[in-house]
Amino acid sequence: MNPDIIRERQNAAFDVEKLTYILDGGPEKTKRRREIESLVFSDPDFNEEDPNFLSRSERYDQAVRKSAQMILKLREYGIADPEEIYYYKSCVHPGRPSPLDLHLAMFLPTLLNQATPAQMDRFFMPAWNLEIIGTYAQTEIGHGTHLRGLETTATYDPATQEFVLNSPTVSSIKWWPGGLGKTSNHAIVLAQLYSLGNCHGLHAFIVPIRDMTTHEPLPGIVVGDIGPKFGFNEVDNGFLKLENVRIPRENMLMKYSKVEPDGTYVKPPSSKLTYGTMVFVRSMIVGESARALSKSCTIAIRYSVVRHQSEIRPGEPEPQILDYQTQQYKLFPLLAMAYAFTFVGQYMTEIYHRISEDINRGDFSQLPELHALSAGLKAFTTWEANSAIEVCRMSCGGHGYSRSSALPDIYVEFTPTCTYEGENTVMMLQTARYLVKSYRQARAGQQLSGIVSYLNESRDRRVQPQAVAARPPVVDINDLSSLVEIYKQRAAILVEMAARSIQQELQHRKSQEDAWNNSAIDLVRASDAHCHYVVVKVFHDKLKGVGDTAIHSVLSTLALLYAMHGITRNSGDFLQAALLSVPQVLQISVRVKELLSQLRPNAVALVDAFDIHDKKLNSVLGRYDGNVYENMFEWARRSPLNATEVHESFQKYLKPLRSKL
Amino acid sequence: MNPDIIRERQNAAFDVEKLTYILDGGPEKTKRRREIESLVFSDPDFNEEDPNFLSRSERYDQAVRKSAQMILKLREYGIADPEEIYYYKSCVHPGRPSPLDLHLAMFLPTLLNQATPAQMDRFFMPAWNLEIIGTYAQTEIGHGTHLRGLETTATYDPATQEFVLNSPTVSSIKWWPGGLGKTSNHAIVLAQLYSLGNCHGLHAFIVPIRDMTTHEPLPGIVVGDIGPKFGFNEVDNGFLKLENVRIPRENMLMKYSKVEPDGTYVKPPSSKLTYGTMVFVRSMIVGESARALSKSCTIAIRYSVVRHQSEIRPGEPEPQILDYQTQQYKLFPLLAMAYAFTFVGQYMTEIYHRISEDINRGDFSQLPELHALSAGLKAFTTWEANSAIEVCRMSCGGHGYSRSSALPDIYVEFTPTCTYEGENTVMMLQTARYLVKSYRQARAGQQLSGIVSYLNESRDRRVQPQAVAARPPVVDINDLSSLVEIYKQRAAILVEMAARSIQQELQHRKSQEDAWNNSAIDLVRASDAHCHYVVVKVFHDKLKGVGDTAIHSVLSTLALLYAMHGITRNSGDFLQAALLSVPQVLQISVRVKELLSQLRPNAVALVDAFDIHDKKLNSVLGRYDGNVYENMFEWARRSPLNATEVHESFQKYLKPLRSKL
Repeated sequence: MNPDIIRERQNAAFDVEKLTYILDGGPEKTKRRREIESLVFSDPDFNEEDPNFLSRSERYDQAVRKSAQMILKLREYGIADPEEIYYYKSCVHPGRPSPLDLHLAMFLPTLLNQATPAQMDRFFMPAWNLEIIGTYAQTEIGHGTHLRGLETTATYDPATQEFVLNSPTVSSIKWWPGGLGKTSNHAIVLAQLYSLGNCHGLHAFIVPIRDMTTHEPLPGIVVGDIGPKFGFNEVDNGFLKLENVRIPRENMLMKYSKVEPDGTYVKPPSSKLTYGTMVFVRSMIVGESARALSKSCTIAIRYSVVRHQSEIRPGEPEPQILDYQTQQYKLFPLLAMAYAFTFVGQYMTEIYHRISEDINRGDFSQLPELHALSAGLKAFTTWEANSAIEVCRMSCGGHGYSRSSALPDIYVEFTPTCTYEGENTVMMLQTARYLVKSYRQARAGQQLSGIVSYLNESRDRRVQPQAVAARPPVVDINDLSSLVEIYKQRAAILVEMAARSIQQELQHRKSQEDAWNNSAIDLVRASDAHCHYVVVKVFHDKLKGVGDTAIHSVLSTLALLYAMHGITRNSGDFLQAALLSVPQVLQISVRVKELLSQLRPNAVALVDAFDIHDKKLNSVLGRYDGNVYENMFEWARRSPLNATEVHESFQKYLKPLRSKL
Repeated sequence: MNPDIIRERQNAAFDVEKLTYILDGGPEKTKRRREIESLVFSDPDFNEEDPNFLSRSERYDQAVRKSAQMILKLREYGIADPEEIYYYKSCVHPGRPSPLDLHLAMFLPTLLNQATPAQMDRFFMPAWNLEIIGTYAQTEIGHGTHLRGLETTATYDPATQEFVLNSPTVSSIKWWPGGLGKTSNHAIVLAQLYSLGNCHGLHAFIVPIRDMTTHEPLPGIVVGDIGPKFGFNEVDNGFLKLENVRIPRENMLMKYSKVEPDGTYVKPPSSKLTYGTMVFVRSMIVGESARALSKSCTIAIRYSVVRHQSEIRPGEPEPQILDYQTQQYKLFPLLAMAYAFTFVGQYMTEIYHRISEDINRGDFSQLPELHALSAGLKAFTTWEANSAIEVCRMSCGGHGYSRSSALPDIYVEFTPTCTYEGENTVMMLQTARYLVKSYRQARAGQQLSGIVSYLNESRDRRVQPQAVAARPPVVDINDLSSLVEIYKQRAAILVEMAARSIQQELQHRKSQEDAWNNSAIDLVRASDAHCHYVVVKVFHDKLKGVGDTAIHSVLSTLALLYAMHGITRNSGDFLQAALLSVPQVLQISVRVKELLSQLRPNAVALVDAFDIHDKKLNSVLGRYDGNVYENMFEWARRSPLNATEVHESFQKYLKPLRSKL
């Protein structure tokens, strides 16, 4: 164990294990999590070569091998709880997606939700037993977010009672689905349904794409891998071009809408049935933001106490770089963010479950709020975490750039969350739509409830910038609940400003749509402020439930830092709305520095509390024992380029060059 | 040619070719640049496989082959001007560093600067003819920025008149030098010189590391590749462990300092001789920021007019995504930044040349200012461009994540600039040291000249936040020179605040060093504001020299957008110092939107003016002809994973699994 990191742990002012329980949601959860880790990490069947030393084909190969093993082990151990399966998988493929992810997370659940009983009989058990391996093919090369723009067609032929599927243009080629390129033999294809000359919009079809025995592509199917990406090297994200592919009528997923044998189309009872899944996935992504950021902070903070560099006082030994104020200022606000997002992730899961029960009882009233909240928080947390991971990487100096640090991998595997499951700007605008609608309802005299109830106050206010600026600020900057309050007022004012921008555009005789588009910057800003408020509020609320004094104290410091750092970064908003005075903003800057010093002795303990197993972290810089350099040297020597002392290019190019010059 | 992109070009309001001349520095430079491009891109010897489809060893192999070819061709064509060599190389290895970069850019120049005539005779011609291939080994695994912390030792042995080199610890292993792992047979090693029992600090030694005939490592040398990184896949960044390696006394670079045969040490005449190189390299990096960002903007903006998505008005066809205000707001400020940084790069090169002449005449008076400026602008532009590249990537939706977009590669090859040649936070603090020193001189009554002359005014001012806030703002927000003025005042105030923070810490009986460290956040902020001011000022000054009315108009719009967008992002600073009023900040937000609309018709023309050859851009999304999707499909089909229809993992793992479940 590195002596620096031992000393850090001795200096911690709270019980790390107890904080871990809070983060996991209870000691039993921590125990079970560690049991699962131990099952995977002690299992020689899951030994692997560092993927960084493999070609892409080898990486894919290794991932398929381990996924196949995983399926066998899960059955052997009888692990069936979805959350436990998810965690087991995250240990088998630490920090990496796998080729079977869409089969497990999209193909099977879609069958469960949308297949008729007859279809379940035909498809579910073969899929459960991995004879059928499936994916979910929605996005096309020229079409993403906007579902109505998708071009793939499924035309019903009553003569043969078949659908004929086609990719009519280059831009309609299915593109991106994970596991589509090489792994799957079936795909659920989203296509525009045509029957009896009419288009009935997007529907889902089960399309066999490869032969069940030979795995060769079937006639009319052009399928393959879309090529290397920033990350996701283990996954065969694929393309699929359909050329007059015929499937039986019974392959349309018909639980809700139907096509009768004669071609008659029967509409689904409700169009909002798929909302739940979207909300669930986006809630999960909020948790993903927390996990990716927790990992990054663990690596950067542990390495910052092991690394000595430069000098603060001449003649003294080089200090730990975490003693530099600039390093603390880079990392501690992100540590606070990691905690904030962890609690927001828990909060999202809780309300998802609560509202799911409402939905099951037929009560849809909370769905719009949950939908808006999950969209906005997905965007807010992924954008913030995305930048934060890179700050962590760069705070490690040159070594953060080495694959041995794991930080490049964390980034490339995480950054797609900003784009998939709803592009972030589009998500922010969806949340804004809900906020503006709520604002208008409040102005019209409706009493709002839930998270947007703060908009009720807008009834009584007329925002005039100058007038606002003159309002005397009364906030106590050292009181977190005061800060929650001004975050709330900032959100209220920015929602109001966005709504007024739309109003002004309309007065210039713009259409509703152009007025909306010409206010989009303000709308995104309003959503951002709303989400920021929610995060600060959730962190504040979480503190109320923490009984342990020492932990309460350190978490309060983190929460205050999170709130105050956010104010310094957005001080213009708070000054503009006169929520804070100039002297208060200056005081907050000074307080931020004090909070950094307060957190310094607990920094390593706070990342230790995330309790991320070394094999999950996979980082020489972030090792629990702090023995960084010897292990980095060890790792480098295993690099494939060191397999021979002399690379063949010397004999091929460099030596012959001498005689030519 | 894609019809959308044709229409964009038809709508441009200025002559693209003329703007290209301004960016290149004159029509002759444009002509010569295109000649060099044509020499490389029409040469079949430089054909290559897309590196994204190769293993790391194959990438290295291909890069060595092309580098060897390049050396031959440069001699054949008689290209000897360093700038032309640099450009030729950037076409041979488009967007990628190469294994011989350090030989050309560090090993040969260091010989030229620091070798004695006798050493030149022994080493220079063999190195020129690539018998000797060298690198520059300074950084160690545990030591970066702080040179005094380096641990490698070179101990003089008068008995044999040799130096004995050692890596005494794991943390002293040389780490990171490009070309060290596999390519070089010599290294210039920086080591602590010991003679007659005394340490004389860091000196440079020429150390043979591999056998000239077999290329095998020499006795006592442990050398190899440091393993895969985020990018730099073509480069064998290496490690070097020295175990009692003996080299002749004459292998110490002795142009300035010396060790006599008896071990007597002779000091160098000046310690500032190496400043020039550092300043030069950092100035070049500012240009690199501009180029990386120009490429990214070219890709994102061209793709944004080709890509149609979603809807603004119901029922109408999907609009080009560049018609969304949010997309314009993401990209146009970055386009403005790319222009700003291009002009700052030109400015840095000009003043570097001017001051170099001064230095050659023995006038060192401008060196501190240039040193501070190059450090700060290196940090400012690389940080800004680094984030901006990722915004460009994410603005392309999912496809930005594909390696075919080139955006992941631009990012990973660029991001090390934030760390190497002076870590950015350290650079900002160096600039701050100069600013605070200048501020104190001004307060003491000295008249400052040059870029910091604005600090002269601080003599007459006492910053009191409240008092400042009460000062009436008189700025005309639509006048760029007014905005330059308030950027200047913002810098002055933030320098003053940082200096006062140090003062306050000292009053709390902190030492100078602790006072400095406890003010580091403010110091970085002051440097940032100073650099921001310089960039806005340089852009403004550049406009004065632009004669063409149409170009002047569009560049003015860009400059205004750059300045105003910077104000909206930092509005707290401007409000806090009462440089702007609340209504003015709100007006600026509205003006930003208007500027976005103004730029929209010229967006494609403005990126066309960068005139980046398709083969340099290497991006299916950024192609000049806009034919994105068919080429993306084409590219994907060449992916190695598509070499066979059925991947072997199916037979190995998936098929056998069926019988086990």
